[in-house]
Amino acid sequence: PVLFRDDEDTFKILIATDIHLGYLEKDPVRGNDTFVTFNEILDHAQKNEVDFVLLGGDLFHENKPSRKTVHSCLESLRKYCMGDRPVQFEILSDQAVNFYYSKFPWVNYQDENLNISIPIFTIHGNHDDPTGADALCALDILSCAGLLNHFGRSNSVEKIDISPILLRKGRTKIALYGLGAIPDERLYRMFVNKQVTMLRPKEDEDSWFNLFVIHQNRSKHGATNYIPEQFLDDFIDLVVWGHEHECKIAPFQNERQRFYVSQPGSSVVTSLSPGEAVKKHIGLLHVKGKKMNMQKIALETVRTFHMEDIVLADHPDLFNPDNPRVTQAIQAFCMEKVELMLDNAERGRLGNPRQPEKPLIRLRVDYTGGFEPFSVHRFSQKYMDRVANPKDIIHFFRHRELKEKNDSDLNFGKLVSRPASEGMTLRVEDLVKQYFQTAEKKVQLSLLTERGMGEAVQEFVDKEEKDAIEELVKFQLEKTQRFLKERRTDAEEGKIDEEV
Amino acid sequence: PVLFRDDEDTFKILIATDIHLGYLEKDPVRGNDTFVTFNEILDHAQKNEVDFVLLGGDLFHENKPSRKTVHSCLESLRKYCMGDRPVQFEILSDQAVNFYYSKFPWVNYQDENLNISIPIFTIHGNHDDPTGADALCALDILSCAGLLNHFGRSNSVEKIDISPILLRKGRTKIALYGLGAIPDERLYRMFVNKQVTMLRPKEDEDSWFNLFVIHQNRSKHGATNYIPEQFLDDFIDLVVWGHEHECKIAPFQNERQRFYVSQPGSSVVTSLSPGEAVKKHIGLLHVKGKKMNMQKIALETVRTFHMEDIVLADHPDLFNPDNPRVTQAIQAFCMEKVELMLDNAERGRLGNPRQPEKPLIRLRVDYTGGFEPFSVHRFSQKYMDRVANPKDIIHFFRHRELKEKNDSDLNFGKLVSRPASEGMTLRVEDLVKQYFQTAEKKVQLSLLTERGMGEAVQEFVDKEEKDAIEELVKFQLEKTQRFLKERRTDAEEGKIDEEV
Repeated sequence: PVLFRDDEDTFKILIATDIHLGYLEKDPVRGNDTFVTFNEILDHAQKNEVDFVLLGGDLFHENKPSRKTVHSCLESLRKYCMGDRPVQFEILSDQAVNFYYSKFPWVNYQDENLNISIPIFTIHGNHDDPTGADALCALDILSCAGLLNHFGRSNSVEKIDISPILLRKGRTKIALYGLGAIPDERLYRMFVNKQVTMLRPKEDEDSWFNLFVIHQNRSKHGATNYIPEQFLDDFIDLVVWGHEHECKIAPFQNERQRFYVSQPGSSVVTSLSPGEAVKKHIGLLHVKGKKMNMQKIALETVRTFHMEDIVLADHPDLFNPDNPRVTQAIQAFCMEKVELMLDNAERGRLGNPRQPEKPLIRLRVDYTGGFEPFSVHRFSQKYMDRVANPKDIIHFFRHRELKEKNDSDLNFGKLVSRPASEGMTLRVEDLVKQYFQTAEKKVQLSLLTERGMGEAVQEFVDKEEKDAIEELVKFQLEKTQRFLKERRTDAEEGKIDEEV
Repeated sequence: PVLFRDDEDTFKILIATDIHLGYLEKDPVRGNDTFVTFNEILDHAQKNEVDFVLLGGDLFHENKPSRKTVHSCLESLRKYCMGDRPVQFEILSDQAVNFYYSKFPWVNYQDENLNISIPIFTIHGNHDDPTGADALCALDILSCAGLLNHFGRSNSVEKIDISPILLRKGRTKIALYGLGAIPDERLYRMFVNKQVTMLRPKEDEDSWFNLFVIHQNRSKHGATNYIPEQFLDDFIDLVVWGHEHECKIAPFQNERQRFYVSQPGSSVVTSLSPGEAVKKHIGLLHVKGKKMNMQKIALETVRTFHMEDIVLADHPDLFNPDNPRVTQAIQAFCMEKVELMLDNAERGRLGNPRQPEKPLIRLRVDYTGGFEPFSVHRFSQKYMDRVANPKDIIHFFRHRELKEKNDSDLNFGKLVSRPASEGMTLRVEDLVKQYFQTAEKKVQLSLLTERGMGEAVQEFVDKEEKDAIEELVKFQLEKTQRFLKERRTDAEEGKIDEEV
């Protein structure tokens, strides 16, 4: 990033992602949050007179958003994106290619019947991806109404050719690449098999600022359940990475390649995890020639979220598990903590009258060491009027004592111990791969025998059929992941308070 | 209706109703019918350069239409209703009142950001009425997108004030009144209780052409389960009556009042009943001063529908119930009939390439008199490739022998014997009223005793509490209607072939 002065050659692009319209829409306290912040985002776009808005997917939380959600979204788009301010850039690429699946395959601001002042370009996310026989998604309703431009759709599972939208403003030229959400494993495989191609303009190839927006796992969730940055072409200048909710919007250069990655993060807290407690921003991206500058804009209407951890065993002076009144002491301590967090939340408010009042509060209590959890229900009651998430303020969990015997020992207990709420899904697949790489054949077989597949594997291993082993392992993994996923769902629904 | 020449004082209004977008959308043969005809209707509007389109409700078949249906509707509206042709009339009324519940409470063609050439005004029907906490309906999605004008919403169950949209073109002034669908009994009661008021312009009251669009039962379905025409104000010039599917679009003067009623009928066959077999039209209404002229436009893309009845007992020369091969004879006769109907259907095609090929065919066979129905399933198989509704070509029914003992005898059997498919819902309520008016108290009581309510009624009757009796009868009626409705549903689903 280089500083420069805005002029008629400078694109100003508002960058945001994962707005999740309609998230918890039936919650009487939080139901309106996503709409309030969406309006704030569009208001920033309008006030900053941006050339366009670029969204990284998951504009909608539900694949089939409610009538109310679609209606509110239409209302916001019509209110903020229409108007007389002229759009200052032109499109050089073949729009019939860029928007080939649209009933109106051209950019909305060039439609003679619509007065668009802020065009929005968006890819779809995993929450609002195309489904059904006609492969429509919620974005297509808005795009058909002429209120946004949905791009980055791939219509083949065999081959993905990403054809950029070519934009020019003055002397600056942007090649805008987009790829809507695709199941990570599939896309991973397609990258590995060289089935993903980013097409480049034939002329003056190096004169373009190459901007790529993608909506996939960026952090590693299993060996092939994410997209490693190095898969992406080196000619890209900036990747806007959607899907990940933690705001890391400041462009960060990839270690091996020259491109930068900006991860805007969501504009709403959808899980009470540390990543979501990070202050939320959107970006104002300035691009001039091949130079860029990302200006962070703090979102002022996001409900404040404060999170803390307590490990009871770390306070032997305060809590003695043998004391009959220890549970009361723990509860009093937690109340004190929550009060402090509420104070912090109050101080963290940004003075925007549209910022919701009640904060999200999460206190995670590790009660390992013979302690008992107190009644979360009664505790919640006390904060009904002051906290937006009274039912899940407190999260009790216990860390299992872990014994690592040796490197080749397959310790499921350890590796799945990350709280699901942190968004860190299981890395079982990774682990098994590593295990097979280091352990002896005999140990492998005994492991698999335990799971009732010994003979079959023996046969394959004798023949050294690597693929067959992978197949078997994959089968076993899927079974395990299904099991763990079910457990996780149970845990999220409060059926299990203890983390595994 | 008076003939006159169109000029700059003439409003040209396209009249249609009950388009039922999305009806049977999953049917591989018929799924697209509603969209094809909607496009034909809008095409007529465009070609005739109408001033506006007036719809009488039930634009959508489902209260929550599918994404595909909403998308297709948006596509049609954006394609046909936007453009450069200027709208030639103005609105004199307070639009904030006319469209008070809209997020954009003004007519779409006056929105500076939208280039509307054909404004659509529509009320909602019973299929697409507002529901849910925020009282939104599917039309509001389109209205929020700026593609139509939803009016005639009432927000009170206490009092309905219908405030007209006042339109002027040259020297012609139209007061456009609308009332979206309300449960018939409730609206009936409100009319009776003088809770419905049609507001009139203060000045030059008599200079307006008063056009009222309504979506209710017009034919009598029970004593209060419809809206008698005479309830409507006499100052009205023309009522456009939605909801009823039979096309009776030619304005017909009410016998007691001076206004005319035009019943456009649906643009799609949603039940295999005689009313739906009537040729479907839309109207081109010309209004000049206080004169009007309704020009019928035959719809060319509606799937042809041919219906015939056979009474086996009417052909003693052909069918003898004692003949062991009579069933084969009946089947052969029916096949002959269906072939003739298919020929007729082919001849009835209008040459429009968009008219679907396979016709709807319905042969109703009254097999009263000791005959047996043949296998409808095997019969259907023969017409899979030639008929759009192979599964319900044949409808067997039997008329019960009716014995009328005397006038006061409550003959349920007779009065519910109308085929439900004819759209003639039960007139039980009517019947019971009549019954109570004519029968002796004692007979009433014995009837009710049979249904286990004797004592209770006795008590009330002794006290001459008319209201209480009505309450009880209502209760009993609701029970009976529920029962009959379930039976009807069963019959529609083919579980019962015999009409009761």
